[in-house]
Amino acid sequence: MAQLGKRLLPLFDRVLIERFVPEVKTKGGIMIPEAAAGKVNSGTVVAVGPGGRTEDGKTLAPAVKEGDKVLLPEYGGHKIEFNSKEYYLFRENEILGKWSE
Amino acid sequence: MAQLGKRLLPLFDRVLIERFVPEVKTKGGIMIPEAAAGKVNSGTVVAVGPGGRTEDGKTLAPAVKEGDKVLLPEYGGHKIEFNSKEYYLFRENEILGKWSE
Amino acid sequence: MAQLGKRLLPLFDRVLIERFVPEVKTKGGIMIPEAAAGKVNSGTVVAVGPGGRTEDGKTLAPAVKEGDKVLLPEYGGHKIEFNSKEYYLFRENEILGKWSE
Amino acid sequence: MAQLGKRLLPLFDRVLIERFVPEVKTKGGIMIPEAAAGKVNSGTVVAVGPGGRTEDGKTLAPAVKEGDKVLLPEYGGHKIEFNSKEYYLFRENEILGKWSE
Amino acid sequence: MAQLGKRLLPLFDRVLIERFVPEVKTKGGIMIPEAAAGKVNSGTVVAVGPGGRTEDGKTLAPAVKEGDKVLLPEYGGHKIEFNSKEYYLFRENEILGKWSE
Amino acid sequence: MAQLGKRLLPLFDRVLIERFVPEVKTKGGIMIPEAAAGKVNSGTVVAVGPGGRTEDGKTLAPAVKEGDKVLLPEYGGHKIEFNSKEYYLFRENEILGKWSE
Amino acid sequence: MAQLGKRLLPLFDRVLIERFVPEVKTKGGIMIPEAAAGKVNSGTVVAVGPGGRTEDGKTLAPAVKEGDKVLLPEYGGHKIEFNSKEYYLFRENEILGKWSE
Repeated sequence: MAQLGKRLLPLFDRVLIERFVPEVKTKGGIMIPEAAAGKVNSGTVVAVGPGGRTEDGKTLAPAVKEGDKVLLPEYGGHKIEFNSKEYYLFRENEILGKWSE
Repeated sequence: MAQLGKRLLPLFDRVLIERFVPEVKTKGGIMIPEAAAGKVNSGTVVAVGPGGRTEDGKTLAPAVKEGDKVLLPEYGGHKIEFNSKEYYLFRENEILGKWSE
Repeated sequence: MAQLGKRLLPLFDRVLIERFVPEVKTKGGIMIPEAAAGKVNSGTVVAVGPGGRTEDGKTLAPAVKEGDKVLLPEYGGHKIEFNSKEYYLFRENEILGKWSE
Repeated sequence: MAQLGKRLLPLFDRVLIERFVPEVKTKGGIMIPEAAAGKVNSGTVVAVGPGGRTEDGKTLAPAVKEGDKVLLPEYGGHKIEFNSKEYYLFRENEILGKWSE
Repeated sequence: MAQLGKRLLPLFDRVLIERFVPEVKTKGGIMIPEAAAGKVNSGTVVAVGPGGRTEDGKTLAPAVKEGDKVLLPEYGGHKIEFNSKEYYLFRENEILGKWSE
Repeated sequence: MAQLGKRLLPLFDRVLIERFVPEVKTKGGIMIPEAAAGKVNSGTVVAVGPGGRTEDGKTLAPAVKEGDKVLLPEYGGHKIEFNSKEYYLFRENEILGKWSE
Repeated sequence: MAQLGKRLLPLFDRVLIERFVPEVKTKGGIMIPEAAAGKVNSGTVVAVGPGGRTEDGKTLAPAVKEGDKVLLPEYGGHKIEFNSKEYYLFRENEILGKWSE
């Protein structure tokens, strides 16, 4: 996939998310990304679209913002790779919840 | 699954529920969680989203609140594990009813 | 199924119904619940939710009330057991009609 | 099916219909219900619900009334038996038309 | 099908149509209904319902009237026989167009 | 199919289109309709219905007019033959675009 | 496909897009279109329709404009060839996002 080194502005109610990398502690306590950990269903919001549009054309303020830690559904979303990274695009309404401290 | 030790704020009309653990009385009356009891379709509301959004963008007050004992449908919902516990996320409209004293 | 000995308050437009027990008259006229009578599609309304909610959030008064004798469709509904009894939860719009004296 | 000897009040936009019994003339002109005549797709309206409800909760006046002779679609409807008779429940919008003298 | 010798008043936005009988000219120019001509997708409007009803209960004036020659889709419609004739009932929105002189 | 030698007035938001005939240039430059050229997805608008009707009964002005050259989707549409010609009926919303000089 | 040498004006909320050609750098750094690179899911907006129409007939301003670099979904869209080039038509709501410098 040609690296575009740019920023992606999601359209409408779409949200760009970078999934957490699953960390695995070895016996010695060293944290190493566990390739076999399988998919982690949480991630950080990287970019948010302007918001969904009502049938009448009004734009609704998004319910998440950049930096939010969010919980994703098991399935769905578009997988995208650019800037040598892997991202996911979900519709706002597909996001299950936000993690708070 | 990395334990996040945080709180999950459901989005929109989603509701976070912890299912009751099925209790089994042995002959001696001792209550032990019955692994084989199968799924219990009731649980306690742990967190509630802000509420569903109408087509026009208005947010509707949720019909359940934290602490409510609710009856869940046999199927559906997202199963989530964090803080070493198992939770379920349902849409408000999927919840069948509330148990009252 | 753990007996909760409580009351179930259906949510939104859901209605809790206890089906009639099919009666069978033997030659001597004795009425005994006929296990083989198959499902009876009528029952008594035990509890009614607050009513369905319009797209705009308005709650619509339910069309049935506690004590009504109602006719149910052949299929559909959620089967629930509590207080050692069997109940069914239907959406108001699934109920076919009301029996009147 | 236990005979309830009562009246059924259809809910919302449902209509209770008793199908015509297909008549068959033998050579001698005698009219006998033809068991093999197959289903007749016409019948008489026996009871009408209050009417369908709009999304906003308004009830719409029904388009048929008791005694109307109506044409039914080949399929669909709920078949019900009570008072030793067979009836059909259709949604108003499923009824094809009214027969007029 | 018992001949009712009556008129059918379609309900709502339904339209009663009698299909043209396909004519076949033999070499001698004689026009004979061609049984094998297959279905003709045009016909004459015999009766029109009051019109479709909006979600809000308003009735919309029909777009066709008795006597119109109309073009029908290949499939769909209810086939009905009465008064020893064959008719078709279509929803107004299924009719493709009107033939004009 | 009986030739009706008439004009077809599409109903509602339907549009009558005559596809371009695919032209094939032989080496000598002669243009001959290429029977094997396969379907051409462009054509000329021959007739336009009054326009689609909103849920509330308002008619919306059509977005194409007679004589427009339009691009059609690969599939869909009703194929019709009359006046010894082949036409296609599409809903306005199915038409992909208009060719401009 | 006959070359029409014209411009295509998409209808309603459709957007005409020319996909980027995937570039492949050989060891010597020469950029050659990589036939085997497979589909690139990004492209440039070539033409935009007037905008989608609400149920009530209002036209909504498009969210993309000519020259925008956009990210496309893996599937969907109509593939079109004219002026010896390959284009894709997507509905505005199918476009995932815009690339910004």
